[in-house]
Amino acid sequence: MELLSVLKQTVERIRGLDETAMRDAEHRIDRLTKPPGSLGRLEEIARQMAGITGELRPDLSGKAVIVMAGDHGVCAEGVSAFPAEVTPQMVLNFLNGGAAVNVLSRHVGADVVCVDIGVNADLSHPNLVVRKIRKGTDNIAAGPAMSLDEAVRSIRTGVEIVDDLAARGYRLFATGEMGIGNTTPSSALLAALTGMDIESVVGRGTGIGDEALRHKRDVIRRALDTNRPNAEDPLDTLAKVGGFEIAGLVGVILGAAANRCPVVIDGFISSAAALVASRIAPLSAAYMLPSHLSHERGHRLLMEHIGLQPILQMDMRLGEGTGAVMAFPIVEAAVKLMNEMATFESAGVSEK
Amino acid sequence: MELLSVLKQTVERIRGLDETAMRDAEHRIDRLTKPPGSLGRLEEIARQMAGITGELRPDLSGKAVIVMAGDHGVCAEGVSAFPAEVTPQMVLNFLNGGAAVNVLSRHVGADVVCVDIGVNADLSHPNLVVRKIRKGTDNIAAGPAMSLDEAVRSIRTGVEIVDDLAARGYRLFATGEMGIGNTTPSSALLAALTGMDIESVVGRGTGIGDEALRHKRDVIRRALDTNRPNAEDPLDTLAKVGGFEIAGLVGVILGAAANRCPVVIDGFISSAAALVASRIAPLSAAYMLPSHLSHERGHRLLMEHIGLQPILQMDMRLGEGTGAVMAFPIVEAAVKLMNEMATFESAGVSEK
Repeated sequence: MELLSVLKQTVERIRGLDETAMRDAEHRIDRLTKPPGSLGRLEEIARQMAGITGELRPDLSGKAVIVMAGDHGVCAEGVSAFPAEVTPQMVLNFLNGGAAVNVLSRHVGADVVCVDIGVNADLSHPNLVVRKIRKGTDNIAAGPAMSLDEAVRSIRTGVEIVDDLAARGYRLFATGEMGIGNTTPSSALLAALTGMDIESVVGRGTGIGDEALRHKRDVIRRALDTNRPNAEDPLDTLAKVGGFEIAGLVGVILGAAANRCPVVIDGFISSAAALVASRIAPLSAAYMLPSHLSHERGHRLLMEHIGLQPILQMDMRLGEGTGAVMAFPIVEAAVKLMNEMATFESAGVSEK
Repeated sequence: MELLSVLKQTVERIRGLDETAMRDAEHRIDRLTKPPGSLGRLEEIARQMAGITGELRPDLSGKAVIVMAGDHGVCAEGVSAFPAEVTPQMVLNFLNGGAAVNVLSRHVGADVVCVDIGVNADLSHPNLVVRKIRKGTDNIAAGPAMSLDEAVRSIRTGVEIVDDLAARGYRLFATGEMGIGNTTPSSALLAALTGMDIESVVGRGTGIGDEALRHKRDVIRRALDTNRPNAEDPLDTLAKVGGFEIAGLVGVILGAAANRCPVVIDGFISSAAALVASRIAPLSAAYMLPSHLSHERGHRLLMEHIGLQPILQMDMRLGEGTGAVMAFPIVEAAVKLMNEMATFESAGVSEK
């Protein structure tokens, strides 16, 4: 299939981190005026940034959070606390600058790139990137969310958007999403790809009660029974129980890695995309940065599975990229520390 | 005693939070376009900022980290991985802008206010605030660190510095410190004031080995046995097993609360000061904001004791105020979210 070969080309563009730059970074960090290792995760992040970009002074000033929006046929099962019409309403909110991710992005100097990849409405706005695959997925409780072809096209969309942004000078990315009902496919992906049981991975999303939670678990069980996704085949699993915005974020992550750019992973839904990306291209995991530990049940398990350790503990559960954007100043701080701190020699400070 | 009455006046300036402003904040936050509570700790912080300042749109743009520096007679016992001469060397590093706290403060737009409150060297620099009580405390393993009079003067110094900064428009403060050996008095304060056992509260500081750790615990045991601090009397305890920079930070915290300004608490040493402040003036605890969970053993226990839940998990253990400064953008983000996000009505978004 032609599309699959395009995806294969992207995966082949992803290389391992630059070991020489990481050693240089480590050497520099160990000369700075502080006890060895005392900056903790900031030292790790600085090293990782050197490995990703190949530079000790990478310019990360071009920052973007890519918010992929899509709808979910499974909403017909009543899995969400909010009506599906909220997806297009919130897209307009993003475009008008009134959502949480807009406020936080302005605060940290990042741009919001809003992509309609599968919203169930006809939207147009000068700042909206319209790359609609279809008006919402099919109901995963009754059959596959999308075709394999649509899954690959969704991924390619994410890759192309990052390729374009990288060509325009953006260097630090965050994943964001909007899609009423999307904790359901994310939970299904997590259960299918890791074999974890449904009780432990399925949570309350935007805030459903006990009975609705039982119902949501039943729906996910039916989705897995009906579709029988092949856990060894991440594309098959993504197509059967995923979503357009989730597949688009898989592309964003692969695209960032292919462009040697760091990508900060937001909460539960973004982490499901990160899991799929790491299964398609294991080398992509090295380009991911964790952000916050979401309040959504299953997120901790998901992060452990990908090997990401959250740095923010904010009890957030909003999505949109809000947690990821909050980590941008931390990533930038790590790079600045490596480059702007005095060394023991330059400052005349005694060592141990 | 005249000094004690000055301290009493400061404590009497500290009021409870503004309940009306907090209710107004809560009402506003619940109308914003997001599921209720989904911004987690950011919502709590926004509410707290309203309660502290009495305003929904507080101007927190004037930001300062106050780095108190002092030396410790107990270094004669060999409790630190670094020689005591590093304290004045690092003070010069702060003044020259080369330390981690300088880089991070520039990054977040905060000023570093460096105070010599007890460094064992004659330091002068146009930007150094010289308020030296004495050239280092006495060895707590052999007797009290300082007199009660010196403890109160140290606290008053912190209060006066914040009073002065607040008068010049600073509104958001962070605690920072430098003092080779100062995890030892901080551990002693924690053990003395909470009754926790020495094994669980004493850690490796800037990086001592197993044998040195056993020795450090012995030294702290001797300090408590020799001085017999009265756990019901925070001033007595502070004078007997504290330090000048720790007492100065107690004053910074009380001063911030007296000026109705939020104060972000850094790591282990700052948290020991916060514990003393909360014992002297329980209302001051409402003005404190947590920052990171330090890698230093005992910090988690200390934070739980004060009732602060860290928001950053960075495995940092440097002090200087580095973790607290990293929390500034988060505090500012919380206030901006409350004021800049669209409401369900203004954005035309459907509710649950």
